[in-house]
Amino acid sequence: MLPRVTTIADLSTPALVVDTTALARNLDTMSAALPGARLRPHVKAHKCTALAREQERRGHAHFTGATPREIVGMARAGLGADLLLANECVDPLRLRALADCPGRVTVAVDSDETVDAAAANGIREVLVDVNVFLPRCGCRPEAAPRLAARARAAGLEVRGVMGYEGHAVAIPDRSERAAKTAQAMERLAQAAKEVGGEIVSAGGTGTYDLNTVATEIQAGSYALMDGDYGNLGLPFKRALAITATVVHVNDRWSVADCGLKALGMDHGNPTIDDAEVMFCSDEHLTFTPHGSVRVGDRVLVWPAHIDPTVAYHDRMHLADGPGVDAHVVDTWPVDLRGWDVSR
Amino acid sequence: MLPRVTTIADLSTPALVVDTTALARNLDTMSAALPGARLRPHVKAHKCTALAREQERRGHAHFTGATPREIVGMARAGLGADLLLANECVDPLRLRALADCPGRVTVAVDSDETVDAAAANGIREVLVDVNVFLPRCGCRPEAAPRLAARARAAGLEVRGVMGYEGHAVAIPDRSERAAKTAQAMERLAQAAKEVGGEIVSAGGTGTYDLNTVATEIQAGSYALMDGDYGNLGLPFKRALAITATVVHVNDRWSVADCGLKALGMDHGNPTIDDAEVMFCSDEHLTFTPHGSVRVGDRVLVWPAHIDPTVAYHDRMHLADGPGVDAHVVDTWPVDLRGWDVSR
Repeated sequence: MLPRVTTIADLSTPALVVDTTALARNLDTMSAALPGARLRPHVKAHKCTALAREQERRGHAHFTGATPREIVGMARAGLGADLLLANECVDPLRLRALADCPGRVTVAVDSDETVDAAAANGIREVLVDVNVFLPRCGCRPEAAPRLAARARAAGLEVRGVMGYEGHAVAIPDRSERAAKTAQAMERLAQAAKEVGGEIVSAGGTGTYDLNTVATEIQAGSYALMDGDYGNLGLPFKRALAITATVVHVNDRWSVADCGLKALGMDHGNPTIDDAEVMFCSDEHLTFTPHGSVRVGDRVLVWPAHIDPTVAYHDRMHLADGPGVDAHVVDTWPVDLRGWDVSR
Repeated sequence: MLPRVTTIADLSTPALVVDTTALARNLDTMSAALPGARLRPHVKAHKCTALAREQERRGHAHFTGATPREIVGMARAGLGADLLLANECVDPLRLRALADCPGRVTVAVDSDETVDAAAANGIREVLVDVNVFLPRCGCRPEAAPRLAARARAAGLEVRGVMGYEGHAVAIPDRSERAAKTAQAMERLAQAAKEVGGEIVSAGGTGTYDLNTVATEIQAGSYALMDGDYGNLGLPFKRALAITATVVHVNDRWSVADCGLKALGMDHGNPTIDDAEVMFCSDEHLTFTPHGSVRVGDRVLVWPAHIDPTVAYHDRMHLADGPGVDAHVVDTWPVDLRGWDVSR
């Protein structure tokens, strides 16, 4: 049995903590800028159907996911009005799970193989994923019409195109970010014209107000925000931290119980306010506090990259403020983790 | 329902795959070098009671863990003959869970606060954790006798000392590694003499045959091995990889479905044999294969750091060889993940 938790300081650590005020402000700000279907929130950053429900309450019924698990989990939670797997999949098991789940599911395709796998496993609707200069998935733009024709010949409804300008979303200089986005979207718009359909799906938190070509923006990070996006001057605030307990103090450094298995580390070390982070081990964070800390104190650790951080945790706790004395008002399962579509 | 899986190529990806031949050889080699209680295997790298049972079958009944969850999970799985939490804890809930679990549990202490918390929450046995130059936990050596006295006065049995030479274990040059280890263990031996007790617990995979002061070695990585340990000339082989599916191919790069949420990234990018890894995204790995690959092909991804990689996954699959055509002979839950002691 878990004990009754009232403040962040009562949580067993490490634990994800969300500042509900910052979260609500982020959600409201984005909904005002991109109302309704203009936003197709991406769930990969938060992996949490309870948070997605907050986005739905603000008028966004269409969602984006990066894994079949995310899509199937959203549909089973009753959030399946219009779900886009913005990713390629050739696994028959997962494609069938997508086809069978209680929702409207559209899948990205970018090759003969992904078109054929979708058609063979009961998928009904697709977007043609077009490469817009990020070296990842997406077909060459000139291949898009042929793939669309192949999909239609196989009985698939082609709803339009998608293309992610991921190489542009984190560029600090706004005009450079805008220029790269425009260049990418010129490519996507041309493909959209040739492919047909209603949807041009693209964008992210860093380009949510710069990408004017996309009919819908796939932003996700704006809800909890990310260290990396902090330099862009966006109107969203960091809403997620990890609370950790100080387990060791000496006159040169201190240690908290938040390590490599609680933190996405691809963007480097996390930060702690009023302290310098020295390094992380599996279950430890060694840091030098500017002030004094004692064994048993709580500290807030700001992860450098939210998405792979959240993916380590079972749940996130909602608190009515940013400090360690804030009250815990709710706990949400991180229920879209992993890759298992059988759950 | 999961489908019947026969070869690695049938697994839904990304999936952890263990080469049973390499694993058995690693376990046998270490057991020959450090038989019985000379080795106290650390479970933090594999987080898997089924793998721990293989270590127990080879004569090691005493285990090390880094989290209360690992210790409690081991005890509940019937592997609780002698468990060491080689880490500091001041959480009453978790200390009580440790005290109440069906096993013999010893906890590391390195401060008045950790001694007092252990005594107040039913812990019966402790080791005094001594700092041996790694900037993390452990008391100053001169404080060890006083902490031992405080523990004994509080009714705790002091079984001895521990000290982890983590700054030495990965030094490529063997003689330098040996020198740093000797220096650290000189410090620990002095503290051991003053503290009393039978146990001097220390060491890791990189120093398993260099640390001659410790009465027991806390090695864990040797079972599955790690990229970082690859340069040390140790007699252990990499036994764990991730199988991933190629989801996109073009004439300049390819993409597999193994990204930041499947990989511990603190040691940098993973590797793929006969390919260059370009970068990882949340659910993608962009790489340039030296040969030709096709959409749907499987590739084996070698993580740069095993411990935080395993912690992302629900299970590991055992295969009778290292290739993607190897047969899957068993599946083990990664059942010591997370920090929840109520499971």
